[in-house]
Amino acid sequence: MKTDIEIAQEATLQPIADIAAKLDISEDVLEPYGKTKAKIDFTKLDMDDKNLGKLILVTAITPTPAGEGKTTTSIGLADGLSKIGKKVAVALREPSLGPVFGVKGGAAGGGYAQVVPMEDINLHFTGDFHAIGAANNLIAALLDNHIHQGNALDIDTNRIVWRRVVDMNDRNLRNIVNGLGRRADGVTREDGFDITVASEVMAAFCLSNSLSELKEKLGNMIVAYTRKDNQPVRVKDINGAGAATALLKDAIKPNIVQTLEGTPAFIHGGPFANIAHGCNSIIATKLAMNHAEYTITEGGFGADLGAEKFLDIKCRQAGIAPSAVVIVATIRALKMHGGVAKKDLGEENVDALRNGMPNLLRHIDNVQNVFGLNAVVAINKFPTDTEAEVKALEEECEKVGVKVVLADHFAKGGEGAVELAEAVVEAADKESNFKFAYDVEASIEEKIETLVTKIYRGKGVEYTPAAKKKIKQFEEQGQGNLPICMAKTQYSFSDDKNLLGAPEDFKITIRDLTVSAGAGFIVALTGDIMKMPGLPKEPASNRIDVDEKGNISGLF
Amino acid sequence: MKTDIEIAQEATLQPIADIAAKLDISEDVLEPYGKTKAKIDFTKLDMDDKNLGKLILVTAITPTPAGEGKTTTSIGLADGLSKIGKKVAVALREPSLGPVFGVKGGAAGGGYAQVVPMEDINLHFTGDFHAIGAANNLIAALLDNHIHQGNALDIDTNRIVWRRVVDMNDRNLRNIVNGLGRRADGVTREDGFDITVASEVMAAFCLSNSLSELKEKLGNMIVAYTRKDNQPVRVKDINGAGAATALLKDAIKPNIVQTLEGTPAFIHGGPFANIAHGCNSIIATKLAMNHAEYTITEGGFGADLGAEKFLDIKCRQAGIAPSAVVIVATIRALKMHGGVAKKDLGEENVDALRNGMPNLLRHIDNVQNVFGLNAVVAINKFPTDTEAEVKALEEECEKVGVKVVLADHFAKGGEGAVELAEAVVEAADKESNFKFAYDVEASIEEKIETLVTKIYRGKGVEYTPAAKKKIKQFEEQGQGNLPICMAKTQYSFSDDKNLLGAPEDFKITIRDLTVSAGAGFIVALTGDIMKMPGLPKEPASNRIDVDEKGNISGLF
Repeated sequence: MKTDIEIAQEATLQPIADIAAKLDISEDVLEPYGKTKAKIDFTKLDMDDKNLGKLILVTAITPTPAGEGKTTTSIGLADGLSKIGKKVAVALREPSLGPVFGVKGGAAGGGYAQVVPMEDINLHFTGDFHAIGAANNLIAALLDNHIHQGNALDIDTNRIVWRRVVDMNDRNLRNIVNGLGRRADGVTREDGFDITVASEVMAAFCLSNSLSELKEKLGNMIVAYTRKDNQPVRVKDINGAGAATALLKDAIKPNIVQTLEGTPAFIHGGPFANIAHGCNSIIATKLAMNHAEYTITEGGFGADLGAEKFLDIKCRQAGIAPSAVVIVATIRALKMHGGVAKKDLGEENVDALRNGMPNLLRHIDNVQNVFGLNAVVAINKFPTDTEAEVKALEEECEKVGVKVVLADHFAKGGEGAVELAEAVVEAADKESNFKFAYDVEASIEEKIETLVTKIYRGKGVEYTPAAKKKIKQFEEQGQGNLPICMAKTQYSFSDDKNLLGAPEDFKITIRDLTVSAGAGFIVALTGDIMKMPGLPKEPASNRIDVDEKGNISGLF
Repeated sequence: MKTDIEIAQEATLQPIADIAAKLDISEDVLEPYGKTKAKIDFTKLDMDDKNLGKLILVTAITPTPAGEGKTTTSIGLADGLSKIGKKVAVALREPSLGPVFGVKGGAAGGGYAQVVPMEDINLHFTGDFHAIGAANNLIAALLDNHIHQGNALDIDTNRIVWRRVVDMNDRNLRNIVNGLGRRADGVTREDGFDITVASEVMAAFCLSNSLSELKEKLGNMIVAYTRKDNQPVRVKDINGAGAATALLKDAIKPNIVQTLEGTPAFIHGGPFANIAHGCNSIIATKLAMNHAEYTITEGGFGADLGAEKFLDIKCRQAGIAPSAVVIVATIRALKMHGGVAKKDLGEENVDALRNGMPNLLRHIDNVQNVFGLNAVVAINKFPTDTEAEVKALEEECEKVGVKVVLADHFAKGGEGAVELAEAVVEAADKESNFKFAYDVEASIEEKIETLVTKIYRGKGVEYTPAAKKKIKQFEEQGQGNLPICMAKTQYSFSDDKNLLGAPEDFKITIRDLTVSAGAGFIVALTGDIMKMPGLPKEPASNRIDVDEKGNISGLF
């Protein structure tokens, strides 16, 4: 089979104005970036939140090393809906540049379910992440400059919570001491860099409904605490909100590209899925919903994290809700949840599949019964899947009244997802009764308790003394009514990544909490969170090259 | 008078395809970035270096705090040439983002001699500098990763010469220790950040004639030296050349925008003028010369540095030469060279003007007699200039046979530079006899000696022991035949910034040397060079803001 980049480079792309025209978006509001990418100046559009198309959330079972294919399913489903004559858009996250040079390679779908131009999307695209990085680092420079110039705000250099960012996998920057040298070279302190997607600017960017709201959110971000009273110092206190927002004036406009089959794709924003909410921007999602009958979008990780944050954080902030939820699984991954090692996944094992089913069933139950939404299960087809395995899976799903569809978009594009598209249309037509998992006005501890018991199905929560202290502080400082963003391993319902399937009788330990006061959520940390990846021994960059005409090779 | 941004925002811009059409550049090769900016895919053009238009270099007297206006003169001259019916392009450097938030504000001309859209040009523009920063920082990450993963190349962590970059004025990053923390967090070492424009990637980018040449140059850049033998370790040794070049595949395409009067402007690349050569990219200059009768371009700082590097480094590497050189001066600045304090510049002072003339005359002599080129003096008009002062200036220039023209483009646009345009056409039509200041095959010390005695008119050169050691090392390692890039104060012919006018009897001390083995020059350092600016007490960012439609204010 051809590589992703080979498939992508063979495609004939349509002019981006033709793609936008499929959604009745006129050329007047397009700001082209080359011939096959554009930004949409949404400020010139009459965005009417009362007449929106249907939103379809694509989420997944608990991820395993076997791979699930949430992004390819989102793209394939969009192409499948196009095939059956629907006016459709897919709204996805932008890939981060750093990981392209690490282990991962590209992140714009795969096989015959890709968004293109894939090289551009994986490299600088339209510059959004660079703009977000610049805004983040301007704030850092203003903060250190404030201290250097006399520290009128009495900032405690030991309580600075703002870090610098770079869109690169660079472990050497995780922990640094800066401001070394002479007096003119700044104030010496401990610091560190995260990868750009981990910046709170990214989260605020994705949770804003307008440029004005973004400015307000950026202004409210906390950069440090004062020496005397431990009071928050915000971006607006160091006069950073206007200039940081100015740096984002173009980035905030959603990007439109196309799938290999010419379905409009909005690729915009891409926050971390652990310390942030892990979905593309509200503005892009709403723009799509304003123009498409069906907007397909996805959340990060499995449904316990990605779908939950999508619903409790993004939908709450945007005032939207999905009409149906697609839960992606693979037979291979379910067999891993049932105890099979990765190397043995090629062999038929119906028992293991049945043993792994409780993971899928718990996610289905959450979607249907906690959130009150209509679910469809999409099985991303692999050549090793056997008839007996598929049959067993269908039986198990039938018991809980959920439709299962085999999807083969990776090999066949939209044609391979027509049945899935039809099932989604049917599910989205049914009544649903959406409700959030928790009342945002409940206490921080109540909200965490609700997530742990209702979504993860754990027995309860334990807090370290540090976590308890933070909860008290945040509630005292008026942040108790923010939604919770759980930073937990994505590999298990529990906080132990080795507990696959549907573990029970576990407790979740909250080690610490942080507040993203601008983006608007409290992060509850259950373990070490890596906010700056490193490069492997043989980085993917070793094989990436470009010829004299600018054609790129080695990007997978 | 209106501010620069007010003038710029009032302008009605022409579609960028219409601007390109003025140079017979077809829409097929344009990659639009919005409606008024585009990149030009030069790989699709038949670039014929044998049939080039005339190149006009704009340079200046030794700069003073009074201001000279080289960029506004370049833009005004281009508009003036348009006015008299010439097919013209102006080729300039891209502004750096960092200083926009510092003291300086914008850098896209001023008054009625600006390139537009000025906000975009001053902020992210088409993302070139972000791409250059990413390429630089990918190399840094690969270098530290190589060491972390076992250091097969035996790199000495005390002899790493590659620094990270960010396009921000951020003094706290000048000197850092990174790789702190656990073993997995990298190797602890001293490091630091420069501003992006100081990266050798920027210099190599601007000195390449093609993408293939850029890849070769990037591969040859030295990142460190080995522990045992002090041998150079290059980017190609850590497998960084292909991926770093891939990151630059779009950036390398020249950007086209327009002046306020619709003259095509190529704004592309912008290396430092002290540790690098300080001119826009060779590719943009040659692209302009392939299509315009007259291409106006500029060098950084005064003619002793900017014009010299333009000629001895850029023109040598590109195989081009200017047909005329415009030396920009102001009566105010000449009076400062003649001993007047800045606060007294408003008063007529013909004696001071005559006392300051030797500075201008020495630059004229260098252009005419060292380089064998035709010179024109442009006096950038100020309201305080008196008739007697102008007359004295004309008299002094007449003595050396140089035409002086008063130019008023700042207040009047191209109309104010018509006389200058006519003088330039006349000068460019004259025969000239261009020669480099030095033979590049001479020894490093001979080349430096030549610059100091022939261009600066000093008595000789002194070297620190460290500098002598470096010269020996570079010659042993085969770098002796590279051109010299002098890093000297721009405020004096000497290495003492307080010696204004035309100092004599001084010696230049070479403190240290570095080699930019990829870009292709040796940097001779005469003093401390600031490669990372800081922010002032009241940063310009304090007044920068943006409204809900994305309109920016406070950018000057």
